Formats: sequence, C-alpha cells, structure tokens
Amino acid sequence: MTELLRREPHVIAAGIELLAQAVERQDARVSRVDWAPPMPGTEADLVTVLADPRRARANADAVRRMLAVRAQLVDVTAAGPVLGLQAGEFLHAGPPISWDRASGPMRGALMGAAVFEGIAPDTEAAADMAANGYFRLDPCHHRGAVGPMAGVISPSMWVFVLEDPADGRRAYCSLNEGLGKVLRYGAYSPDVIERLRWMSAVLGPLLQAAVRRHGPVDITSILAAMVQMGDEAHNRNRAGTLMLLRDLLPSMAESGFAASEVADAARFIGGNDHFFLNLAMPACKLALDAARDIPGSTMVVAMARNGTDFGIQVSGTGDQWFTGPALVPSGLFLGGYGPADANPDIGDSAIAETAGLGGFAMAAAPAIVRLVGGTVASALASTQRMRQITLAEHPLLQVPALDFRGTPVGIDTTLVVRTGILPQINTGMAGKVAGTGQVGAGLVTPPAEVFPAALGALAAAALRDH
Amino acid sequence: MTELLRREPHVIAAGIELLAQAVERQDARVSRVDWAPPMPGTEADLVTVLADPRRARANADAVRRMLAVRAQLVDVTAAGPVLGLQAGEFLHAGPPISWDRASGPMRGALMGAAVFEGIAPDTEAAADMAANGYFRLDPCHHRGAVGPMAGVISPSMWVFVLEDPADGRRAYCSLNEGLGKVLRYGAYSPDVIERLRWMSAVLGPLLQAAVRRHGPVDITSILAAMVQMGDEAHNRNRAGTLMLLRDLLPSMAESGFAASEVADAARFIGGNDHFFLNLAMPACKLALDAARDIPGSTMVVAMARNGTDFGIQVSGTGDQWFTGPALVPSGLFLGGYGPADANPDIGDSAIAETAGLGGFAMAAAPAIVRLVGGTVASALASTQRMRQITLAEHPLLQVPALDFRGTPVGIDTTLVVRTGILPQINTGMAGKVAGTGQVGAGLVTPPAEVFPAALGALAAAALRDH
Repeated sequence: MTELLRREPHVIAAGIELLAQAVERQDARVSRVDWAPPMPGTEADLVTVLADPRRARANADAVRRMLAVRAQLVDVTAAGPVLGLQAGEFLHAGPPISWDRASGPMRGALMGAAVFEGIAPDTEAAADMAANGYFRLDPCHHRGAVGPMAGVISPSMWVFVLEDPADGRRAYCSLNEGLGKVLRYGAYSPDVIERLRWMSAVLGPLLQAAVRRHGPVDITSILAAMVQMGDEAHNRNRAGTLMLLRDLLPSMAESGFAASEVADAARFIGGNDHFFLNLAMPACKLALDAARDIPGSTMVVAMARNGTDFGIQVSGTGDQWFTGPALVPSGLFLGGYGPADANPDIGDSAIAETAGLGGFAMAAAPAIVRLVGGTVASALASTQRMRQITLAEHPLLQVPALDFRGTPVGIDTTLVVRTGILPQINTGMAGKVAGTGQVGAGLVTPPAEVFPAALGALAAAALRDH
Repeated sequence: MTELLRREPHVIAAGIELLAQAVERQDARVSRVDWAPPMPGTEADLVTVLADPRRARANADAVRRMLAVRAQLVDVTAAGPVLGLQAGEFLHAGPPISWDRASGPMRGALMGAAVFEGIAPDTEAAADMAANGYFRLDPCHHRGAVGPMAGVISPSMWVFVLEDPADGRRAYCSLNEGLGKVLRYGAYSPDVIERLRWMSAVLGPLLQAAVRRHGPVDITSILAAMVQMGDEAHNRNRAGTLMLLRDLLPSMAESGFAASEVADAARFIGGNDHFFLNLAMPACKLALDAARDIPGSTMVVAMARNGTDFGIQVSGTGDQWFTGPALVPSGLFLGGYGPADANPDIGDSAIAETAGLGGFAMAAAPAIVRLVGGTVASALASTQRMRQITLAEHPLLQVPALDFRGTPVGIDTTLVVRTGILPQINTGMAGKVAGTGQVGAGLVTPPAEVFPAALGALAAAALRDH
C-alpha cells in the first residue's frame, strides 16, 4: 500500500464520464472501461431471467430456428384472400393503434387506401369515415405480413408471398411504390392512387405470371449476395433490386404480357432502388416467426412502429407487445424539409434490424452514410456495437470488409437491459402532416423503456412457469 | 557525439532488410523506413526525365484529358466494317506477336476463330494455315479496340461501340462469352463455336436494336456506381452487369425480337457476372486514348499482354511498345488445376488497372479475395500502395470504405522506376495448353524491365526535343 502511494496514480474509470474527468483534472492518468450499470430498476428482473434454467437452451433454439429458414418468393397475388381482408379492413405497420391516436402519415395512408379501394369518394370523406369507426384496423404482424412506413395493406393491393420450403410457413408484404410522394409515406394525391391502380392491374399480375413461370426465387440467397454488394437491405436495396430483376425478367418477357407492359414493369422496378425492400422484409419476418413462442427465450422476434408507438415482441412472451413512444430519427433531409417536418419513427421495416440487416449490417454498406448521415467509421462501429446485444453471427450474411464475419443477429433482451445499448435502426422519415410523403432518412433507436418492460414480462413468466 | 555514444543506440534502417536484421541481432532498436533505391541503372535517365521542363504540365494535361472522358455505349455492330477487318485477319490482345511465338491460349483462340469464320474446316487445319502464314494478326490496340484474355476479334464477331460525346472518339470491344470453356481463354470445342454463332446471330443484333432504341448508355456512370457496390470492374463486374441489364432490358423487350430470344439474351447476360467487363475495358481505353501523344508526359496509357509478352505504352512516346516476358499470376485455381497449368499473363484487360480500376480499386471490392486470393487487408493495401505510383485520384471512382476517396489513377513511369513499386493487376488465368479454357484467377504485375525501358525512351525524347 505504501508502495502504491509512492507511484504515480493510474485510475481505471467505469461508468459515468464525470468521475473520469474529475480525476483527470488532478493530472492523474485515467483509463476508461466501457461499462455501464444495467438500465435502472431492472436488477431484480435481470437476476430472475438470467437464472431461468430454460434460457440458454431456449435462446439457442430460437437462433437455430431463425437461421435455418430459407425464404423463397413463391407467388404474387391480391392481398384480400390470402390475408383474410374484408372491404373496409386495413392492415398497418407497428403495434395496434386506433385512428384517434394515429399519426399524420398513418392517417394519410389510410385515407389514400380508402380512396384507392373506392369505399370513400375522396380523402376528406375517408378521414370522416375513419373517425366515425367505419374502418377496421389490424397490425400487419397479426396476419403474417409486414409493411414499410405506414405499412397500409388493403384488399385490392397485391402482395409478395414468401415461403419457407422446410415447413410451408408463409410471410407477406405489399409491392414497393418507389420514393417521394407514395402512400406508405402518407401521400395520397391522385398520382399516388393512379400508381396503386397500375400496380394492381398490371405490375402485380405480370409479376405473378413471371414468378409462377420461373418457380421459387431464392430471396435468402439474394440477401447474402447483397451484403457483399454494398446493401444492408433496409435503406440500400440497389443490388437486391437488380438481382430480382435479373431473375424474373426472362420469365416476364415470356409471360405473354404485351412487350410494352413488360418494358414498363422493368422500368418501374429498375427505376426504384428500394423495390427489393418489400422482399427483404418478409424474408426477415419468415425467419423471425420461426423463433416465436419458445418458453424462456429472451430473443426479440419483432420490432415495429406505427408512427406513434414503437413496439417489440419477444419469443418467450408470445404475441404481447411492449410499447413506448416512437422517437424522431435524426439524419438527412430532402429538399427544403427539416427536423420539424419529421414524423416519429414508423414502419415494420425494423424487422430488418431484428434479423441482422439494416443498422446491424451497415458495415457492409458504407455508402449508406450519404443517405442516413453519419460517417463510414460510424457505420462500421454500428455493426460491431450490435455484437454486444446479440446472440449470434449470421452465417450467410458475411461482411467482406470485416473479413467475412457474419452480421450480429438475435437481439437479446437481457443484453440490451444489462448494457444499455439500444438496437441501431436506419430508416426513412415521413412528413408528420398527412399527405406530405418522404422528408428524409436517418438513424433512430427504440425507446429504451420497451426492453425493461419485456424483461419484466419474461421475469413474471419465469417465476410462473418454474 | 560523446553524448550520442552514451545513450542507447536507435538505428533508422532504409533499403534492404539484411542490414536492419544485422543491427537487431546486436540488440539495438531499429526503425525501418519504407524506402528503396530506384530500379538499377535508371539514375541517369531519371535525372533527365525529371528535369524535362515539359513534364509537369504534360502529365497534368494527360490526367485532365483522361478524367474528362465520358464513355457512352452508342451501338453494337459486326466487327468487320468498323474495325477494318478482312477475312483471314484477326485482332488479338497485347503487343504485336506472330504465330510462332504465340502461347497456347492465343493459338487456341485463333484456331477457334478461324473455324467460327468458316475459313478453316477444323482447328487442326486452322493451326496449319496459321503456321503457314495464311492469317494476318494485329493487336486490338492498333484498331482502337481491346479484348480480354486472348482478345481475338474476327470480322463476324459483334462488338460494343463506345463513344466520348465530347469529341466523337470511339473504342470497341467484343461481347463477353461467359466463363470456363470460352474462346478468349483458348477453348475451341464445338459448344464454344456454337455459342459464338448465337452471339453473332441473335445476341448482337438484339443488343443493337435495344441500344439504338434506348439511346446512349452512360458506361462511366455505371463504373462510378459499381465501385460503391463491391465491383472493381476487372474481375468483379456483378453490379455493372446488373445495371446494364436494368438499362437495356426494357428496350430489349420492345425491340420486336421474339419473347423467347429476349428471354434467352436476358438469361445469358444475367448468368454471366463478367458480361460488363467488355464494357468497362473499352470505357478505360477511351479515357486513356485521350491522354496519348503528349510530348513529355510520363503517364502510362496502355498495359496489355499477349500471353507471351507484357507491353506498355506511354503518352510521351507515341505508339512504341515496351515489352518483357509476361509473368505467371499467383492465385486460386478451378477444380483440379494448379500452378503448372497456368499460362503467363494474357489480355488487354489490364487497361482497367491503367485507368484506376481492377487491382487499383480492390479496396472497393474486398469480396474479390475469394476469387483471386489474398486477404481483405491486402486488397485495401493494394489500392493504397498504388497511390505511390500514380498522378491523381479518380473523382468519379469513389471508394466508400476509404471515406469516398477516389481510386489512384494515372501510372507515372518515373514513380514506378523511382519506388520500384509495380502496378498491381488482378486477372483470370488461362490454361497454357490450347483448348483448355480458364484454370483460375490471381494477382500479377508487369515484368519490372518495361518501366526502365520506357524511361529510357522518354529520356531520349527529352534530350532530342529539348
């Protein structure tokens, strides 16, 4: 001890920065250790859940089932019959929400969809009908579907049908409309409705004919190829879109449709770098649904936002949503838009991050910083940081720049609560006023409180079941 | 001095490693400095060329002209008329060569082309005719063209026509056949000839109709997009091929050709990740040709190999070739092939490296190490090392992983001679026995002696002109 006091002091600081700085101001050397206490008030639940004897095996099962899924595009078809949608019924992104709590872009998309379906003469009437309870709303996730941004799916829209050949399970997603003034960002002008009509009248049936002629398209393989081509499959889907075109175009040409329709469809898909997003998302949903309902598993199986609430679902707690207020992303804005124009986080597309893509795969897509902000170094760091809250590395999603190491996958509720590190999501930003459309793209996280809430339910289940 | 001897010695070592090791064995600290003497015997020529008062401005001109070029695909057409090729005349890769010095794959490709043209009944007869001087051979580069591997172009083959809209200059390249058993790798079996016939009868005319209907395709823009999608445009052309398909398929569908022919062509192009190589190469040729014939410029404007000799051309020395024996690449082999099966380096495709792509852009394409060998770190280092022998950074070829810094471009003969650093080329490997086809892919450099030879000619020109 006497010896220690004679030597120059070298202090190791963990936790809050204030203490390290106070020591530094006294000219002592400080080494900082990257440690933080668990999220406040979670200690008892953490002890209970970490002690659950089922946990390790349950999480291993969840990871194994998720990674075993192969997603194939097997059909394209009208949404109504396959999703059990009646007239006046609409699916939407995120956890359940009612019209009175719905954000601008969610309302705008519902109004546009009602006009598109012909059940409202105009958007004002649609808003009145919605406010008076004429429409039934249900989350996409409750019907095996996912939808980007507002995620509104109505009966006459067409959807991609993805299937895992191992067990025949399916997942669904609408067709991507492009960027800017589009329904999923809450726009509903006549050109938006017109485009939706063409998508249901021509694009959907043409893609149906092509997929049925071609046979299943291996979406999982395209995802694996994408992360070697600069895509992270949430806000960069350029290579994925091109590979889908490559696979389907010969069959589109031979589909019997008019050459001009084939050409129009090829131009529409080829002109929209995000077209593949609506295939990446249901592929992720299909993988994560395989890991649902495993007692004791703390793995997150869905993250989704309705523009008001951010919700997560966890394998060990069934269909229960744990929700908190959706945050506003920070990032880069289009044209004259700024932070004041942005709606809080919206869309089922965070299913990408839940499955090891998007913000978890940004090291594979450094060019994305030109869209969502940040630096190339921060994109690399984002992928590496997510390893601290995940259960596995994805064997198929190999990042060349990280010496082909897999992306981090399988968000563990206990790791999030213990480290305080929140999942990194990259996302488009919708204008908060209904009818606006896209205003930018950026980075966001879930509200922290959803993870302690989920942990509490896991702890209650552990105490109940054991 | 006395003080110096009292302190622990710290030696700075430059040049050969032997000296540094000798000092280390005596327990002294050694810091190594990355320095090497110029290539042996070049000192006098270096002094002359570096003192040439025209040099700085001439190289700045060469760089400016090269970087100003925009390459557009403006037509696809039969080679004979546009390249001035008569029956019995063949273009080939690399500097000039005669049949008696030609390597196996060069002979194999010429034999196959003669059968394809119908001027020889079979490949044995073709070899006899070639040996007896019936064929006229000329380098692609002498006709404004480039060809990968053997690079054989015969009159009935079809070629891409690229043009710089600023001055109407053109460059040409054959259509890519795919991998494995293909003519450019020296294979000549009946399926190879049959494929060439289909390419001239269907693929070429269909692409011609599509390009004429579509209008010019901006190849320079596709190259810029490729390096943000994991391609380096020599041995990875996946994204480039997909973007070409995206741009041309709508016009292919509307070309009036049968749907089955459109579908076959789309499958052929989409099934060959290297299809775009034959557009990247003439785009590079078009850029570099703009920098030719500038008195005093030491910039390399062509690197090309015929399978026997490696040749370079330099702006300040006109059409003169400086040649040395082509080296054998080291890399990875297909199937049961090994190093003993590989022919020395062959093809005009090193025009990619000459223009800042290929080995110079490997930092943009880390996944390429799975094809050509090496590590991700070595791919990054390769791009950075090339900065020591180049005059500029390409403003359009921005590498996201290097914070969007441009690829190194404009190889300077004096920098190569002064540093001893040789241009890094990545390349396919042909089997050395005629008829074999591809055996692998790997890394190679020019033979060192071509650079002192070019420097000598630059020095003679400097002394003569000044």
